[in-house]
Amino acid sequence: MSSSLLRIGSTSCSYKKSKLLSIPLYQTVSMSESPLVLVHRPPNLNFMDELLSRNYRILNTHTSSDPLPVFLSRQASSVRAFVNIALLKIDADLLSHLPSLQLIVCTSVGTNHVDLAECKRRGIAVTNAGEAFSEDVADFAVGLLISVLRRIPAADRYVRSGNWAKSGDFQLGIKLSGKRVGILGLGSIGSLIAKRLEPFGCIISYNSTSQKQRIPYLYYPDVLSLAANNDVVVLSCALNDQTHHIVNREVMEALGKNGVIINVGRGGLIDEKEMVKCLVEGVIGGAGLDVFEKEPGVPEELFGLDNVVLSPHAAMETPGSLDNIALLVLANLKAFFSDQPLISPVRLD
Amino acid sequence: MSSSLLRIGSTSCSYKKSKLLSIPLYQTVSMSESPLVLVHRPPNLNFMDELLSRNYRILNTHTSSDPLPVFLSRQASSVRAFVNIALLKIDADLLSHLPSLQLIVCTSVGTNHVDLAECKRRGIAVTNAGEAFSEDVADFAVGLLISVLRRIPAADRYVRSGNWAKSGDFQLGIKLSGKRVGILGLGSIGSLIAKRLEPFGCIISYNSTSQKQRIPYLYYPDVLSLAANNDVVVLSCALNDQTHHIVNREVMEALGKNGVIINVGRGGLIDEKEMVKCLVEGVIGGAGLDVFEKEPGVPEELFGLDNVVLSPHAAMETPGSLDNIALLVLANLKAFFSDQPLISPVRLD
Repeated sequence: MSSSLLRIGSTSCSYKKSKLLSIPLYQTVSMSESPLVLVHRPPNLNFMDELLSRNYRILNTHTSSDPLPVFLSRQASSVRAFVNIALLKIDADLLSHLPSLQLIVCTSVGTNHVDLAECKRRGIAVTNAGEAFSEDVADFAVGLLISVLRRIPAADRYVRSGNWAKSGDFQLGIKLSGKRVGILGLGSIGSLIAKRLEPFGCIISYNSTSQKQRIPYLYYPDVLSLAANNDVVVLSCALNDQTHHIVNREVMEALGKNGVIINVGRGGLIDEKEMVKCLVEGVIGGAGLDVFEKEPGVPEELFGLDNVVLSPHAAMETPGSLDNIALLVLANLKAFFSDQPLISPVRLD
Repeated sequence: MSSSLLRIGSTSCSYKKSKLLSIPLYQTVSMSESPLVLVHRPPNLNFMDELLSRNYRILNTHTSSDPLPVFLSRQASSVRAFVNIALLKIDADLLSHLPSLQLIVCTSVGTNHVDLAECKRRGIAVTNAGEAFSEDVADFAVGLLISVLRRIPAADRYVRSGNWAKSGDFQLGIKLSGKRVGILGLGSIGSLIAKRLEPFGCIISYNSTSQKQRIPYLYYPDVLSLAANNDVVVLSCALNDQTHHIVNREVMEALGKNGVIINVGRGGLIDEKEMVKCLVEGVIGGAGLDVFEKEPGVPEELFGLDNVVLSPHAAMETPGSLDNIALLVLANLKAFFSDQPLISPVRLD
């Protein structure tokens, strides 16, 4: 499985450290009394195994060759918590094999792969990665934007191919300073992107579920006006029924032929088929894409385009983040089983 | 010739606009009385031709197939100003063919390709691109840094090759937020790089010819201590006798195996042969290089490395910058021939 499916945290992030540190992680418990915790993870990502098994009885899905529903039916009836170190789809059917489940701990920020309505109905709590990845994703979004405008991967290809020495005529890039950047979703990640782009002289505006108080940026009430009034649109909102394909052909036409889309949210935020057409036909100017609708599948029409920069859902991934997300996962488990407030709960309504 | 040899400006840059606008650019002059201006430019870069010939009698080197010294000897004896829209080396020998020369207008920031000592001896004034490119170069430097740390061009290659769908295991990048960044040369460009990196949570320090007043960043008195105390070293200083190969093996060893070099100055600032060895041997962690010692030549050993990002001396190039540099060139010519102070003079001592 892909490490890119992992949604991991960030060691130097200051995310609720005081909260985390107030919870003793290495309690002495009788292991026979300890809750049974189900773990689903890519086979190569064992960084949490030791910490988890020091504190809980662990049932690891990848130790069995049985189909998952069979495995769960046979062994998971007493599982109380489920740590999902990937984007495994957790639907009502899968949940039906976990009758004792009380908590789902996701290592991703987005939880569109979890049936939250069913969780609410069953009274299952859900946690996510909170703000643990926000810095890394914001850094990457800015990197993608400069890479698209200034054609950095294209420049790199050009030099490596030997074409600089041969032909010497590299197409100029586009200036970033002064660009109007519209951010769709001004949450933790979107706010950090805005903060980073300010000293570039970018003019920031945003669209969000509602206008925010004490935010100096111009608010657009819908994505169409956001696109029409900006040179760049950055997608950093959650994927849900309201935001699915929120960037459609009409929005891209409003953004225009020099407009650029940066997507560090989810692939489903954009009508990908239309986006490919818009890029090929020059309806929009370029795109920096970390996420896609059918990952790891990427439309092959994009592979030949110099005005796109492609990335394998890697915006939040840095090696240092593994320790941080492990700490957050454990802290959520500890909090739950100590009847303390969860560290990074997901709202279920 | 290469457009990448062009050193161009930036339209939205606010560089001394008030000064520029105070000088009338389109004076009515008798063309027969107008000074003869020599222009050397890549054949495809004709964006200044119209403006220049509307104001001056122009002698364009690319209109002749004669070797340059022959051409100059035959036609350039009365040339008073020389506009160098490239990095043509202007040495004492070439200057000897221009007995009436009073002014050299360079469209680059760096003037290491001009024999400034000979210009001083002859009383020839020199101008450069001033701060016209600073924003674009600073933007690009930050883009290179994120690209190296977060492996953006490597990610792009990985997706385009189809490897994400095939193998799915992309190597994690390195976090930018919180990195210690040492800037060598805290002039116009270096200061803008620092300003841009602050909201990433980077800890900025610098080395410069002297410690600057009212600058909040830590000063290191030499490049060795700068390298030893930082995760990243950014080169944004001029190339001259004092800075040639200022980044040598010892400096790279001090920077260390996780250290990254970003060079948006000149190739000659680094001992390139040693840098290649250090990158191959893992003495340093990575590099983002817009400039090289023997451009457009790039050491082929770099082409196979994933921890370097290569660019064809394109940091200051955006299409909008052409108008701006044309304006600056004309303003310098007008100022000179009106006995006004030059807009962007180069100090000759």
